[in-house]
Amino acid sequence: MLKALREKLPEYSFIYFGDTARTPYGNKSPETITRYGREDAKLLLDMGAKLIVIGCNTVSAVAAEMLRNEFSVPVFEVIKPAVEEALGEGEAKNIGVIGTRATIKSGIYQKLLNENAVNPVNVYAEACPLFVPLVEEGWEGELETAAIVKKSLSGIKLKGIDTLILGCTHYPLLERVIQSFLGPGVRVVDSGKALAGAVKKYLEANPEIDSRMEKQGRVKVLVSDITDQSLELSLAQGFGQVDLEKANL
Amino acid sequence: MLKALREKLPEYSFIYFGDTARTPYGNKSPETITRYGREDAKLLLDMGAKLIVIGCNTVSAVAAEMLRNEFSVPVFEVIKPAVEEALGEGEAKNIGVIGTRATIKSGIYQKLLNENAVNPVNVYAEACPLFVPLVEEGWEGELETAAIVKKSLSGIKLKGIDTLILGCTHYPLLERVIQSFLGPGVRVVDSGKALAGAVKKYLEANPEIDSRMEKQGRVKVLVSDITDQSLELSLAQGFGQVDLEKANL
Repeated sequence: MLKALREKLPEYSFIYFGDTARTPYGNKSPETITRYGREDAKLLLDMGAKLIVIGCNTVSAVAAEMLRNEFSVPVFEVIKPAVEEALGEGEAKNIGVIGTRATIKSGIYQKLLNENAVNPVNVYAEACPLFVPLVEEGWEGELETAAIVKKSLSGIKLKGIDTLILGCTHYPLLERVIQSFLGPGVRVVDSGKALAGAVKKYLEANPEIDSRMEKQGRVKVLVSDITDQSLELSLAQGFGQVDLEKANL
Repeated sequence: MLKALREKLPEYSFIYFGDTARTPYGNKSPETITRYGREDAKLLLDMGAKLIVIGCNTVSAVAAEMLRNEFSVPVFEVIKPAVEEALGEGEAKNIGVIGTRATIKSGIYQKLLNENAVNPVNVYAEACPLFVPLVEEGWEGELETAAIVKKSLSGIKLKGIDTLILGCTHYPLLERVIQSFLGPGVRVVDSGKALAGAVKKYLEANPEIDSRMEKQGRVKVLVSDITDQSLELSLAQGFGQVDLEKANL
Protein backbone atom coordinates (compact mmCIF):
# COMPACT_ATOMS: atom_id res chain seq x y z
CA MET A 1 0.00 0.00 0.00
CA LEU A 2 2.62 2.56 1.05
CA LYS A 3 4.84 1.21 -1.71
CA ALA A 4 2.17 1.91 -4.33
CA LEU A 5 1.54 5.39 -2.93
CA ARG A 6 5.24 6.28 -2.93
CA GLU A 7 5.61 5.09 -6.50
CA LYS A 8 2.75 7.35 -7.61
CA LEU A 9 3.62 10.27 -5.33
CA PRO A 10 7.37 10.09 -4.70
CA GLU A 11 7.74 13.70 -3.58
CA TYR A 12 5.07 13.52 -0.85
CA SER A 13 5.73 12.79 2.82
CA PHE A 14 3.90 9.92 4.52
CA ILE A 15 3.11 8.89 8.07
CA TYR A 16 2.34 5.19 8.18
CA PHE A 17 0.69 3.60 11.19
CA GLY A 18 0.46 -0.16 11.68
CA ASP A 19 -1.62 -1.23 14.68
CA THR A 20 0.50 -4.30 15.36
CA ALA A 21 -0.60 -4.48 19.01
CA ARG A 22 -4.18 -5.23 17.95
CA THR A 23 -4.00 -6.78 14.49
CA PRO A 24 -5.44 -8.68 12.77
CA TYR A 25 -8.70 -6.71 12.46
CA GLY A 26 -10.33 -8.99 9.90
CA ASN A 27 -12.12 -11.33 12.30
CA LYS A 28 -13.25 -8.65 14.73
CA SER A 29 -16.73 -7.14 15.03
CA PRO A 30 -17.84 -3.94 13.22
CA GLU A 31 -18.06 -2.14 16.60
CA THR A 32 -14.47 -2.97 17.54
CA ILE A 33 -13.13 -2.23 14.04
CA THR A 34 -14.90 1.15 14.08
CA ARG A 35 -13.45 2.02 17.48
CA TYR A 36 -9.95 1.04 16.36
CA GLY A 37 -10.32 2.98 13.10
CA ARG A 38 -11.32 6.11 14.98
CA GLU A 39 -8.35 5.82 17.36
CA ASP A 40 -5.95 5.14 14.48
CA ALA A 41 -7.20 8.19 12.54
CA LYS A 42 -6.88 10.44 15.60
CA LEU A 43 -3.31 9.31 16.07
CA LEU A 44 -2.46 10.19 12.45
CA LEU A 45 -4.17 13.59 12.69
CA ASP A 46 -2.31 14.33 15.93
CA MET A 47 0.90 13.60 14.05
CA GLY A 48 -0.03 16.22 11.46
CA ALA A 49 -1.67 14.16 8.69
CA LYS A 50 -3.64 16.33 6.23
CA LEU A 51 -5.26 13.47 4.32
CA ILE A 52 -6.04 9.96 5.45
CA VAL A 53 -5.65 6.83 3.38
CA ILE A 54 -7.24 3.78 4.97
CA GLY A 55 -4.76 1.19 3.80
CA CYS A 56 -6.87 -1.71 4.97
CA ASN A 57 -9.95 -3.21 3.37
CA THR A 58 -11.48 -4.25 6.67
CA VAL A 59 -11.47 -0.71 8.07
CA SER A 60 -12.50 0.64 4.66
CA ALA A 61 -15.46 -1.72 4.52
CA VAL A 62 -16.67 -1.10 8.03
CA ALA A 63 -15.60 2.39 9.13
CA ALA A 64 -14.87 4.67 6.14
CA GLU A 65 -18.24 6.44 6.33
CA MET A 66 -17.80 7.08 10.04
CA LEU A 67 -14.31 8.53 9.48
CA ARG A 68 -15.61 10.83 6.71
CA ASN A 69 -18.38 12.07 9.00
CA GLU A 70 -16.23 12.58 12.07
CA PHE A 71 -13.06 14.06 10.59
CA SER A 72 -12.65 17.07 8.34
CA VAL A 73 -9.69 15.90 6.21
CA PRO A 74 -10.19 13.95 2.97
CA VAL A 75 -10.49 10.22 3.69
CA PHE A 76 -9.57 7.66 1.04
CA GLU A 77 -10.43 4.04 1.27
CA VAL A 78 -9.37 1.09 -0.84
CA ILE A 79 -12.70 -0.32 -1.95
CA LYS A 80 -14.10 2.22 -4.38
CA PRO A 81 -10.94 2.44 -6.54
CA ALA A 82 -10.73 -1.35 -6.65
CA VAL A 83 -14.37 -1.57 -7.72
CA GLU A 84 -13.78 0.97 -10.50
CA GLU A 85 -10.70 -0.81 -11.73
CA ALA A 86 -12.45 -4.18 -11.64
CA LEU A 87 -15.42 -2.87 -13.63
CA GLY A 88 -13.08 -1.15 -16.11
CA GLU A 89 -14.81 -0.38 -19.39
CA GLY A 90 -17.53 -2.90 -18.77
CA GLU A 91 -15.66 -5.98 -19.96
CA ALA A 92 -15.91 -7.77 -16.59
CA LYS A 93 -18.90 -10.10 -16.34
CA ASN A 94 -18.11 -12.46 -13.49
CA ILE A 95 -16.20 -10.82 -10.66
CA GLY A 96 -14.75 -12.61 -7.66
CA VAL A 97 -13.91 -10.79 -4.45
CA ILE A 98 -11.84 -12.20 -1.63
CA GLY A 99 -11.15 -10.58 1.72
CA THR A 100 -11.30 -11.00 5.47
CA ARG A 101 -14.42 -12.23 7.18
CA ALA A 102 -15.40 -8.68 8.24
CA THR A 103 -14.91 -7.25 4.74
CA ILE A 104 -16.93 -9.94 2.98
CA LYS A 105 -19.64 -9.93 5.63
CA SER A 106 -20.07 -6.16 5.24
CA GLY A 107 -21.26 -6.79 1.68
CA ILE A 108 -19.72 -3.54 0.49
CA TYR A 109 -17.91 -4.92 -2.54
CA GLN A 110 -21.00 -6.77 -3.65
CA LYS A 111 -23.09 -3.58 -3.25
CA LEU A 112 -20.68 -1.18 -4.98
CA LEU A 113 -19.96 -3.55 -7.87
CA ASN A 114 -23.66 -3.93 -8.59
CA GLU A 115 -24.36 -0.21 -8.20
CA ASN A 116 -21.53 0.94 -10.43
CA ALA A 117 -21.65 -1.66 -13.19
CA VAL A 118 -22.79 -0.34 -16.57
CA ASN A 119 -23.73 -3.84 -17.66
CA PRO A 120 -25.02 -6.33 -15.08
CA VAL A 121 -22.28 -8.34 -13.37
CA ASN A 122 -22.24 -11.47 -11.27
CA VAL A 123 -20.32 -11.11 -8.03
CA TYR A 124 -18.90 -14.04 -6.08
CA ALA A 125 -17.47 -13.19 -2.68
CA GLU A 126 -15.41 -15.45 -0.43
CA ALA A 127 -13.77 -14.82 2.94
CA CYS A 128 -10.20 -16.17 3.09
CA PRO A 129 -9.27 -15.64 6.74
CA LEU A 130 -6.17 -17.84 6.64
CA PHE A 131 -4.40 -15.76 3.98
CA VAL A 132 -3.35 -13.02 6.43
CA PRO A 133 -1.59 -15.36 8.89
CA LEU A 134 0.10 -17.16 5.97
CA VAL A 135 1.44 -13.85 4.65
CA GLU A 136 2.47 -12.71 8.12
CA GLU A 137 4.46 -15.92 8.56
CA GLY A 138 6.20 -15.36 5.24
CA TRP A 139 4.76 -18.60 3.83
CA GLU A 140 4.01 -17.14 0.37
CA GLY A 141 6.18 -19.72 -1.39
CA GLU A 142 5.19 -22.82 0.56
CA LEU A 143 3.33 -25.77 -0.94
CA GLU A 144 0.91 -25.72 2.00
CA THR A 145 -0.01 -22.14 1.11
CA ALA A 146 -0.71 -23.14 -2.47
CA ALA A 147 -2.96 -25.91 -1.11
CA ILE A 148 -4.90 -23.47 1.09
CA VAL A 149 -5.23 -21.01 -1.80
CA LYS A 150 -6.59 -23.83 -3.96
CA LYS A 151 -9.08 -24.93 -1.33
CA SER A 152 -10.20 -21.36 -0.61
CA LEU A 153 -10.62 -20.30 -4.26
CA SER A 154 -11.99 -23.51 -5.80
CA GLY A 155 -15.59 -22.40 -5.41
CA ILE A 156 -14.95 -19.03 -7.05
CA LYS A 157 -12.91 -20.60 -9.84
CA LEU A 158 -15.77 -22.98 -10.66
CA LYS A 159 -18.03 -19.98 -11.18
CA GLY A 160 -15.88 -19.01 -14.15
CA ILE A 161 -14.77 -15.61 -12.93
CA ASP A 162 -12.95 -13.32 -15.37
CA THR A 163 -11.79 -10.84 -12.69
CA LEU A 164 -10.69 -11.25 -9.07
CA ILE A 165 -10.40 -8.39 -6.59
CA LEU A 166 -7.77 -8.93 -3.89
CA GLY A 167 -9.89 -7.27 -1.23
CA CYS A 168 -7.26 -7.26 1.52
CA THR A 169 -3.99 -5.37 1.45
CA HIS A 170 -2.08 -8.46 2.58
CA TYR A 171 -3.18 -10.55 -0.39
CA PRO A 172 -0.96 -9.06 -3.13
CA LEU A 173 1.90 -10.97 -1.50
CA LEU A 174 0.01 -14.11 -2.57
CA GLU A 175 -0.73 -12.79 -6.07
CA ARG A 176 1.63 -15.16 -7.84
CA VAL A 177 0.10 -18.23 -6.14
CA ILE A 178 -3.42 -16.98 -6.74
CA GLN A 179 -2.81 -16.11 -10.40
CA SER A 180 -1.14 -19.45 -10.94
CA PHE A 181 -4.15 -21.32 -9.53
CA LEU A 182 -6.74 -19.27 -11.43
CA GLY A 183 -4.80 -19.25 -14.70
CA PRO A 184 -3.84 -16.38 -17.01
CA GLY A 185 -7.42 -15.80 -18.17
CA VAL A 186 -8.41 -14.16 -14.87
CA ARG A 187 -7.49 -10.51 -14.33
CA VAL A 188 -6.35 -9.91 -10.74
CA VAL A 189 -7.03 -6.45 -9.29
CA ASP A 190 -4.84 -5.19 -6.44
CA SER A 191 -6.84 -2.77 -4.31
CA GLY A 192 -3.69 -0.95 -3.15
CA LYS A 193 -2.50 -0.01 -6.63
CA ALA A 194 -5.93 1.20 -7.67
CA LEU A 195 -6.10 3.44 -4.62
CA ALA A 196 -2.74 5.13 -5.21
CA GLY A 197 -3.91 6.27 -8.66
CA ALA A 198 -7.12 7.67 -7.16
CA VAL A 199 -5.23 9.70 -4.54
CA LYS A 200 -2.93 11.14 -7.19
CA LYS A 201 -5.85 12.12 -9.41
CA TYR A 202 -7.61 13.78 -6.48
CA LEU A 203 -4.59 15.88 -5.51
CA GLU A 204 -4.12 17.02 -9.10
CA ALA A 205 -7.76 18.06 -9.25
CA ASN A 206 -7.70 19.84 -5.86
CA PRO A 207 -4.67 22.15 -5.77
CA GLU A 208 -5.83 23.96 -2.61
CA ILE A 209 -5.73 20.67 -0.70
CA ASP A 210 -2.57 19.58 -2.44
CA SER A 211 -0.84 22.78 -1.28
CA ARG A 212 -1.28 21.69 2.37
CA MET A 213 0.74 18.53 1.82
CA GLU A 214 4.38 18.29 2.83
CA LYS A 215 6.45 17.31 -0.19
CA GLN A 216 9.79 16.27 1.22
CA GLY A 217 9.56 12.58 0.38
CA ARG A 218 9.83 11.67 4.06
CA VAL A 219 8.33 8.51 5.53
CA LYS A 220 7.58 8.02 9.19
CA VAL A 221 6.63 4.50 10.20
CA LEU A 222 4.78 4.00 13.47
CA VAL A 223 3.61 0.75 15.00
CA SER A 224 1.75 0.10 18.23
CA ASP A 225 3.92 -2.95 18.98
CA ILE A 226 7.45 -3.63 17.86
CA THR A 227 7.96 -7.31 17.04
CA ASP A 228 10.29 -9.19 14.72
CA GLN A 229 7.34 -9.70 12.40
CA SER A 230 6.42 -6.02 12.21
CA LEU A 231 9.94 -5.26 11.01
CA GLU A 232 9.94 -8.10 8.47
CA LEU A 233 6.52 -7.18 7.17
CA SER A 234 7.50 -3.55 6.84
CA LEU A 235 10.41 -4.64 4.68
CA ALA A 236 8.12 -6.84 2.59
CA GLN A 237 5.83 -3.87 2.06
CA GLY A 238 8.67 -1.85 0.61
CA PHE A 239 9.46 0.60 3.37
CA GLY A 240 13.14 -0.17 2.97
CA GLN A 241 15.35 -0.12 6.05
CA VAL A 242 13.39 2.11 8.39
CA ASP A 243 13.45 2.66 12.10
CA LEU A 244 10.14 1.65 13.55
CA GLU A 245 8.81 4.06 16.11
CA LYS A 246 6.43 2.97 18.86
CA ALA A 247 3.07 4.71 19.06
CA ASN A 248 1.00 4.39 22.21
CA LEU A 249 -2.71 3.90 21.73
CA MET B 1 -8.91 -24.92 29.70
CA LEU B 2 -12.18 -23.95 31.41
CA LYS B 3 -13.52 -27.36 30.44
CA ALA B 4 -10.66 -29.12 32.25
CA LEU B 5 -11.10 -26.89 35.32
CA ARG B 6 -14.83 -27.53 35.49
CA GLU B 7 -14.30 -31.27 35.23
CA LYS B 8 -11.87 -31.20 38.16
CA LEU B 9 -13.75 -28.58 40.20
CA PRO B 10 -17.43 -28.87 39.21
CA GLU B 11 -18.78 -27.12 42.30
CA TYR B 12 -16.68 -23.97 41.89
CA SER B 13 -17.79 -20.77 40.14
CA PHE B 14 -15.68 -19.36 37.31
CA ILE B 15 -15.32 -16.03 35.55
CA TYR B 16 -13.77 -16.55 32.14
CA PHE B 17 -12.35 -13.66 30.15
CA GLY B 18 -11.35 -13.95 26.48
CA ASP B 19 -9.67 -10.86 25.07
CA THR B 20 -11.13 -11.34 21.61
CA ALA B 21 -10.68 -7.66 20.70
CA ARG B 22 -6.89 -8.04 20.89
CA THR B 23 -6.09 -11.70 20.27
CA PRO B 24 -3.99 -13.41 19.14
CA TYR B 25 -1.26 -12.54 21.68
CA GLY B 26 1.26 -15.10 20.45
CA ASN B 27 3.10 -12.92 17.92
CA LYS B 28 3.15 -9.78 20.04
CA SER B 29 6.08 -8.40 22.01
CA PRO B 30 6.74 -9.19 25.72
CA GLU B 31 5.98 -5.54 26.60
CA THR B 32 2.56 -5.63 24.96
CA ILE B 33 1.71 -9.10 26.31
CA THR B 34 2.64 -7.94 29.82
CA ARG B 35 0.46 -4.83 29.53
CA TYR B 36 -2.48 -6.90 28.27
CA GLY B 37 -1.98 -9.52 31.00
CA ARG B 38 -2.07 -6.82 33.69
CA GLU B 39 -5.27 -5.29 32.28
CA ASP B 40 -6.91 -8.71 31.94
CA ALA B 41 -6.06 -9.63 35.55
CA LYS B 42 -7.40 -6.30 36.85
CA LEU B 43 -10.66 -6.90 35.04
CA LEU B 44 -11.04 -10.34 36.64
CA LEU B 45 -10.22 -9.01 40.12
CA ASP B 46 -12.74 -6.18 39.66
CA MET B 47 -15.32 -8.86 38.88
CA GLY B 48 -14.55 -10.55 42.20
CA ALA B 49 -12.03 -13.23 41.24
CA LYS B 50 -10.20 -14.68 44.28
CA LEU B 51 -7.67 -16.74 42.35
CA ILE B 52 -6.34 -16.24 38.85
CA VAL B 53 -5.64 -18.97 36.34
CA ILE B 54 -3.70 -17.76 33.30
CA GLY B 55 -5.31 -19.99 30.70
CA CYS B 56 -2.83 -19.00 28.01
CA ASN B 57 0.73 -20.16 27.53
CA THR B 58 1.87 -16.90 25.98
CA VAL B 59 0.81 -14.81 28.98
CA SER B 60 2.10 -17.54 31.33
CA ALA B 61 5.50 -17.51 29.64
CA VAL B 62 5.90 -13.75 29.54
CA ALA B 63 3.90 -12.22 32.39
CA ALA B 64 3.21 -14.74 35.19
CA GLU B 65 6.01 -13.42 37.43
CA MET B 66 4.77 -9.85 37.00
CA LEU B 67 1.21 -10.87 37.90
CA ARG B 68 2.42 -12.71 41.02
CA ASN B 69 4.39 -9.66 42.11
CA GLU B 70 1.67 -7.11 41.44
CA PHE B 71 -1.43 -8.92 42.66
CA SER B 72 -2.10 -10.49 46.02
CA VAL B 73 -4.30 -13.40 44.95
CA PRO B 74 -2.82 -16.81 44.02
CA VAL B 75 -1.82 -16.86 40.33
CA PHE B 76 -1.67 -20.14 38.42
CA GLU B 77 -0.06 -20.51 35.05
CA VAL B 78 -0.05 -23.39 32.60
CA ILE B 79 3.65 -23.99 32.14
CA LYS B 80 4.87 -25.43 35.43
CA PRO B 81 2.15 -28.15 35.63
CA ALA B 82 2.84 -29.12 32.01
CA VAL B 83 6.56 -29.36 32.71
CA GLU B 84 5.91 -31.59 35.73
CA GLU B 85 3.57 -33.83 33.81
CA ALA B 86 5.99 -34.09 30.91
CA LEU B 87 8.90 -35.03 33.17
CA GLY B 88 6.72 -37.56 35.04
CA GLU B 89 8.77 -40.13 36.91
CA GLY B 90 11.82 -39.44 34.82
CA GLU B 91 10.92 -41.65 31.88
CA ALA B 92 10.98 -38.76 29.35
CA LYS B 93 14.33 -38.36 27.61
CA ASN B 94 13.61 -36.32 24.48
CA ILE B 95 10.92 -33.74 24.99
CA GLY B 96 9.41 -31.59 22.26
CA VAL B 97 7.62 -28.33 23.05
CA ILE B 98 5.45 -26.41 20.61
CA GLY B 99 3.82 -23.03 21.16
CA THR B 100 3.43 -19.54 19.84
CA ARG B 101 6.40 -17.46 18.79
CA ALA B 102 6.35 -15.48 22.07
CA THR B 103 6.16 -18.62 24.24
CA ILE B 104 9.01 -20.42 22.48
CA LYS B 105 11.16 -17.27 22.31
CA SER B 106 10.76 -16.75 26.06
CA GLY B 107 12.71 -20.00 26.57
CA ILE B 108 10.70 -20.79 29.70
CA TYR B 109 9.80 -24.37 28.84
CA GLN B 110 13.38 -25.13 27.91
CA LYS B 111 14.61 -23.61 31.20
CA LEU B 112 12.05 -25.27 33.49
CA LEU B 113 12.39 -28.69 31.86
CA ASN B 114 16.15 -28.63 32.33
CA GLU B 115 15.92 -27.30 35.88
CA ASN B 116 13.34 -29.82 37.05
CA ALA B 117 14.54 -32.96 35.30
CA VAL B 118 15.90 -35.65 37.61
CA ASN B 119 17.79 -37.23 34.73
CA PRO B 120 19.14 -35.01 31.94
CA VAL B 121 16.65 -34.41 29.12
CA ASN B 122 16.95 -33.09 25.58
CA VAL B 123 14.46 -30.36 24.77
CA TYR B 124 13.41 -29.46 21.23
CA ALA B 125 11.25 -26.36 20.91
CA GLU B 126 9.39 -25.17 17.83
CA ALA B 127 7.08 -22.21 17.29
CA CYS B 128 3.94 -23.15 15.34
CA PRO B 129 2.29 -19.77 14.74
CA LEU B 130 -0.17 -21.04 12.13
CA PHE B 131 -1.86 -23.53 14.47
CA VAL B 132 -3.91 -20.84 16.26
CA PRO B 133 -5.52 -19.40 13.10
CA LEU B 134 -6.21 -22.93 11.84
CA VAL B 135 -8.01 -23.78 15.08
CA GLU B 136 -9.85 -20.47 15.11
CA GLU B 137 -11.12 -21.18 11.59
CA GLY B 138 -12.33 -24.62 12.67
CA TRP B 139 -9.97 -26.31 10.20
CA GLU B 140 -8.98 -29.14 12.60
CA GLY B 141 -10.16 -31.84 10.23
CA GLU B 142 -8.86 -30.43 6.94
CA LEU B 143 -6.15 -32.05 4.84
CA GLU B 144 -4.36 -28.71 4.58
CA THR B 145 -4.14 -28.58 8.36
CA ALA B 146 -2.60 -32.05 8.45
CA ALA B 147 -0.06 -30.83 5.86
CA ILE B 148 0.85 -27.80 7.98
CA VAL B 149 1.12 -29.95 11.11
CA LYS B 150 3.44 -32.30 9.21
CA LYS B 151 5.61 -29.45 7.95
CA SER B 152 5.76 -27.76 11.35
CA LEU B 153 6.56 -30.91 13.35
CA SER B 154 8.86 -32.77 10.94
CA GLY B 155 12.01 -31.35 12.53
CA ILE B 156 10.92 -32.32 16.04
CA LYS B 157 9.81 -35.78 14.90
CA LEU B 158 13.21 -36.43 13.34
CA LYS B 159 14.81 -35.78 16.72
CA GLY B 160 13.05 -38.87 18.02
CA ILE B 161 11.02 -37.22 20.76
CA ASP B 162 9.19 -39.47 23.25
CA THR B 163 7.05 -36.64 24.71
CA LEU B 164 5.45 -33.56 23.20
CA ILE B 165 4.09 -30.64 25.24
CA LEU B 166 1.21 -28.79 23.58
CA GLY B 167 2.39 -25.42 24.86
CA CYS B 168 -0.61 -23.40 23.69
CA THR B 169 -4.15 -23.80 24.93
CA HIS B 170 -5.48 -23.81 21.36
CA TYR B 171 -3.44 -26.83 20.34
CA PRO B 172 -5.42 -29.61 22.06
CA LEU B 173 -8.01 -29.11 19.32
CA LEU B 174 -5.32 -30.38 16.94
CA GLU B 175 -4.29 -33.25 19.22
CA ARG B 176 -5.70 -35.98 17.00
CA VAL B 177 -3.85 -34.67 13.91
CA ILE B 178 -0.64 -34.19 15.89
CA GLN B 179 -0.79 -37.62 17.53
CA SER B 180 -1.54 -39.23 14.19
CA PHE B 181 1.52 -37.61 12.58
CA LEU B 182 3.87 -38.38 15.48
CA GLY B 183 2.60 -41.92 16.00
CA PRO B 184 1.42 -43.74 19.14
CA GLY B 185 4.94 -43.90 20.63
CA VAL B 186 4.93 -40.20 21.52
CA ARG B 187 3.15 -39.10 24.68
CA VAL B 188 1.28 -35.82 24.14
CA VAL B 189 0.90 -33.55 27.19
CA ASP B 190 -1.99 -31.06 27.27
CA SER B 191 -0.99 -28.07 29.39
CA GLY B 192 -4.62 -27.29 30.27
CA LYS B 193 -5.37 -30.66 31.83
CA ALA B 194 -2.16 -30.62 33.86
CA LEU B 195 -3.03 -27.19 35.24
CA ALA B 196 -6.52 -28.15 36.40
CA GLY B 197 -5.04 -30.91 38.55
CA ALA B 198 -2.55 -28.48 40.08
CA VAL B 199 -5.29 -25.97 41.01
CA LYS B 200 -7.36 -28.70 42.65
CA LYS B 201 -4.39 -29.96 44.66
CA TYR B 202 -3.57 -26.42 45.79
CA LEU B 203 -7.11 -25.71 47.02
CA GLU B 204 -7.19 -29.00 48.93
CA ALA B 205 -3.90 -28.11 50.61
CA ASN B 206 -4.96 -24.52 51.42
CA PRO B 207 -8.41 -24.63 53.05
CA GLU B 208 -8.25 -20.98 54.17
CA ILE B 209 -7.93 -19.87 50.53
CA ASP B 210 -10.43 -22.47 49.40
CA SER B 211 -13.00 -21.08 51.84
CA ARG B 212 -12.98 -17.74 49.95
CA MET B 213 -14.13 -19.39 46.73
CA GLU B 214 -17.73 -19.30 45.61
CA LYS B 215 -18.98 -22.84 45.09
CA GLN B 216 -22.19 -22.49 43.16
CA GLY B 217 -20.95 -24.00 39.89
CA ARG B 218 -21.67 -20.76 38.06
CA VAL B 219 -19.77 -19.71 34.93
CA LYS B 220 -19.61 -16.16 33.66
CA VAL B 221 -18.07 -15.74 30.22
CA LEU B 222 -16.75 -12.32 29.24
CA VAL B 223 -15.17 -11.31 25.96
CA SER B 224 -13.81 -7.95 24.83
CA ASP B 225 -15.33 -8.37 21.37
CA ILE B 226 -18.37 -10.38 20.38
CA THR B 227 -17.90 -12.08 17.02
CA ASP B 228 -19.30 -15.20 15.41
CA GLN B 229 -15.95 -16.86 16.06
CA SER B 230 -15.87 -16.05 19.75
CA LEU B 231 -19.19 -17.82 20.16
CA GLU B 232 -18.10 -20.83 18.09
CA LEU B 233 -14.80 -21.10 19.90
CA SER B 234 -16.50 -20.88 23.26
CA LEU B 235 -18.67 -23.80 22.26
CA ALA B 236 -15.62 -25.76 21.13
CA GLN B 237 -14.02 -25.10 24.51
CA GLY B 238 -16.95 -26.70 26.24
CA PHE B 239 -18.73 -23.71 27.75
CA GLY B 240 -22.00 -25.05 26.48
CA GLN B 241 -24.68 -22.63 25.37
CA VAL B 242 -23.72 -19.48 27.22
CA ASP B 243 -24.54 -15.84 26.77
CA LEU B 244 -21.38 -13.94 26.03
CA GLU B 245 -21.10 -10.70 27.90
CA LYS B 246 -19.06 -7.80 26.58
CA ALA B 247 -16.26 -6.46 28.79
CA ASN B 248 -14.76 -3.07 28.02
CA LEU B 249 -11.02 -2.81 28.34
